[in-house]
Order: sequence, then structure tokens, then C-alpha cells
Amino acid sequence: MAKGARQFLMSKGLFITFEGGEGAGKTTQIKKLAGYLQSKNKKVVITREPGGTPEAEKIRDLLVQRDGGNWSPEAEVLLLYTARQMHAQDLIKPALKQGKIVVSDRFADSTRAYQSYGHGLPLEYVNNIHAFVLGNMEPDITFLLDIPVEEGLKRSKGHLQKSKDEREQTEDRFEGLDISFHKKLREGFLELAKANPERFVVLDATRDIDTLQETIRKKVDEKLN
Amino acid sequence: MAKGARQFLMSKGLFITFEGGEGAGKTTQIKKLAGYLQSKNKKVVITREPGGTPEAEKIRDLLVQRDGGNWSPEAEVLLLYTARQMHAQDLIKPALKQGKIVVSDRFADSTRAYQSYGHGLPLEYVNNIHAFVLGNMEPDITFLLDIPVEEGLKRSKGHLQKSKDEREQTEDRFEGLDISFHKKLREGFLELAKANPERFVVLDATRDIDTLQETIRKKVDEKLN
Repeated sequence: MAKGARQFLMSKGLFITFEGGEGAGKTTQIKKLAGYLQSKNKKVVITREPGGTPEAEKIRDLLVQRDGGNWSPEAEVLLLYTARQMHAQDLIKPALKQGKIVVSDRFADSTRAYQSYGHGLPLEYVNNIHAFVLGNMEPDITFLLDIPVEEGLKRSKGHLQKSKDEREQTEDRFEGLDISFHKKLREGFLELAKANPERFVVLDATRDIDTLQETIRKKVDEKLN
Repeated sequence: MAKGARQFLMSKGLFITFEGGEGAGKTTQIKKLAGYLQSKNKKVVITREPGGTPEAEKIRDLLVQRDGGNWSPEAEVLLLYTARQMHAQDLIKPALKQGKIVVSDRFADSTRAYQSYGHGLPLEYVNNIHAFVLGNMEPDITFLLDIPVEEGLKRSKGHLQKSKDEREQTEDRFEGLDISFHKKLREGFLELAKANPERFVVLDATRDIDTLQETIRKKVDEKLN
């Protein structure tokens, strides 16, 4: 474990994650950031969780599809960390070693927020399995797109009406969860940000897209220089 | 964790596992044992690993099918313990609580033998995740059907020629593994038995079916009385 952790800290790349509830605008901001970095001749890898590698995407299918099974919170965390182990080993770590910038739509903080703050599993459970599987691997920067729950869900539903294809790509399962769950989720993300100020940047996701993107670029440029 | 472990020790049932390499005759012995116990009006649940519940069987599919993915040894262990968590929670523990006899074709010792002794992952890795997921839950009796590797593979291939259906049910992936792997596996099982004499019963699986079954029944009857 210690060896893996040291190796990770030695990497030359930059590991950026975007977190937040539904409808916060993560996808849009990630696409714009990637375009910006590529225009500066940076090598960027865009990825997502759960998923990011063929094996991890198979686990995503199990978790996201309605007929994927009735998993216990513990099993969900174990599945998410199985996917994360493959994702880190096969995609994130090699890319960082090559000096690339890895931008991931969700990472470990989503497990902490959904399974722990949302579904009530002790945060320690997630943190213990994190340490066991990934050592002290954490993102260099985590952008939290924070949005009031009602606003986020309204935006998310707007997306869903666009096309059947898009609807199938979203996490069907989460539609069924009620407002109080999404509120716990939002509070969870904000608590995680407060506990990890060295890497979290909390953004008011109700602000306009370009203003948000400007703040994000500034922060990434700072880290790169 | 401690609570789960205590709960497990309080169970009135009996948890029996069968372990061993390919072609050792586990299925035959399990069927005969179940028939015997049912004839004595015992409530018996026959199950298997990986699998045993709908969710765990989905994980089995990922691990066993040739196109299921190129999993790392660590991810394999995590997947196996995700399946085992669901299996223990939804099937084994409730059945034991109701006083039933649970007979499982493979359990945690197979992960120790295959992933650790076979594929070289430290045994500690498996034992740590076992403690994390299941506490100190172990079978009451583990029958190890021990057979020389060449003999086991010959028998296993004999089965495979019987029917396409049967072939698909066997663990295709393992056919590709070489003799030296199966030898490490056998040694691993024997070491596990030596380290856990209080629950392991090592049987010479080259002996005839009925003689083996007699020994198994005697041992189970001892435990029940």
C-alpha cells in the first residue's frame, strides 16, 4: 500500500475531479475545461465513475440499471471500489505517470456522499476500504458544483426530457430517490469540502456557465504553474 | 463488525463448506449429503460460490465468463467479497438463524487458495478484506476433497465431454490455467487445512464415492449431536 501511495505522489500529472448532485452541470464544465487545456497543448484524459475502463463499466451497469440487483450499501461500496481499483490501476495512474491531466466526472467523494451521507453507512466504512484499495490516493483538485436540491433536480429533469437516449445514459435508479436524500447528499458534499479544504473548490453552480468555467480555469492554471 | 460476528456465533444452524480443485467430486458429495440430511428431517440449503443470490450470481458471471473482463487479482478478491457479502447477508446468515444446515460448494477458502496461493496475492490481503466484510465468520466444518492434480483434471475433462450445457456451467476460464497453477492451488488448500484443523476435514478424493460419503456423514452427525 505504502509503495503505491508513494508512486502516486511522485506522478507528474494532475488529477482533477468534479463532484456534485444531479443537474449541477459537471459534464458541461468538464468538456469546456478539457477544450481549454487541449488548446494549451496539454494532454487531457476525460473519464468518469463508476466506470472509465471496460471492467469498471461492467460494474457501472450492475449499479445503475434498474434490474442490476438489490445491492446492500456495503456491497455497493465494495463494487464501487472494485471499479475504482481497476480505474486507478489501468487508466488514472498510468496517465498521471505520463504527465497527463486526468479529469474525472465523480470519484471517491461520490461514494462518501451517496453511500455514507446519503444511505447512512458509516463514513469510516468508506474511508477504510479506500485506504485498503487505494492507499492515500486523492485528487489534486476537486471542484464541487453546489446547487440547491430543487434547482438541480429541475435541471436534471430538463435534460431527461431531451431524448430517450440521454435518459438511458443517466442514472435511472437515482430518479426514485426523494428530496430528503438529495438534501443529505448536498450536505455531505459540503461537509467533505469543509474537511478537505486543501483540495476542494466549492462553486455556486447556479452562476452562469462561463463565469464558473473562468474560476475553474484560473484554479487549474494556478496548480499547473 | 463485532455485532455481526456475535450474531453469527449465536446461530443455531450448521454451516458446511466443500473445497477442492477441479474434478474432486464436490457436487456429488454435496448432493448425497443433502439427501441424507433431508431423510433425517433436517432443513438443508444447498448453495455455491461465487453466487448463491441473484446479485452474487451476476458477479459470478463477470468472473467466470471468458469475456467478463481482465480483472486484476485485487479486483477479483473485491468482487468475490462483494458477492460473499450479499450471499452471507441474504442467504447464509438468515438460514443459519432459522436453524438450517447450509452446505456451500466453495466459500472463502477458495479465494484464499485461488487468488492468494494460486495467483500470488498476499494471504493477508484476502484475510484483511474477509475481516472487514464478514468479521470472524467461518464455516463450522470444511471438507477438503484432496486429489492429485493430474487425476482431478482428467476427471474434470471427462465431465466436460459429457455435454455442452455442462461445459458452459463449469468455470471455462480455469481450463486455461496450467498444471503448476493447479499444484499451487492444491498445496494452498492443504496449508489452509493444516492452519485450521478445528474446522477442516481433509479427504482423499481418489477413494470411492460411498466411502467418502460415509466419512462425511459421520463427521456431520458428530457436529449435530
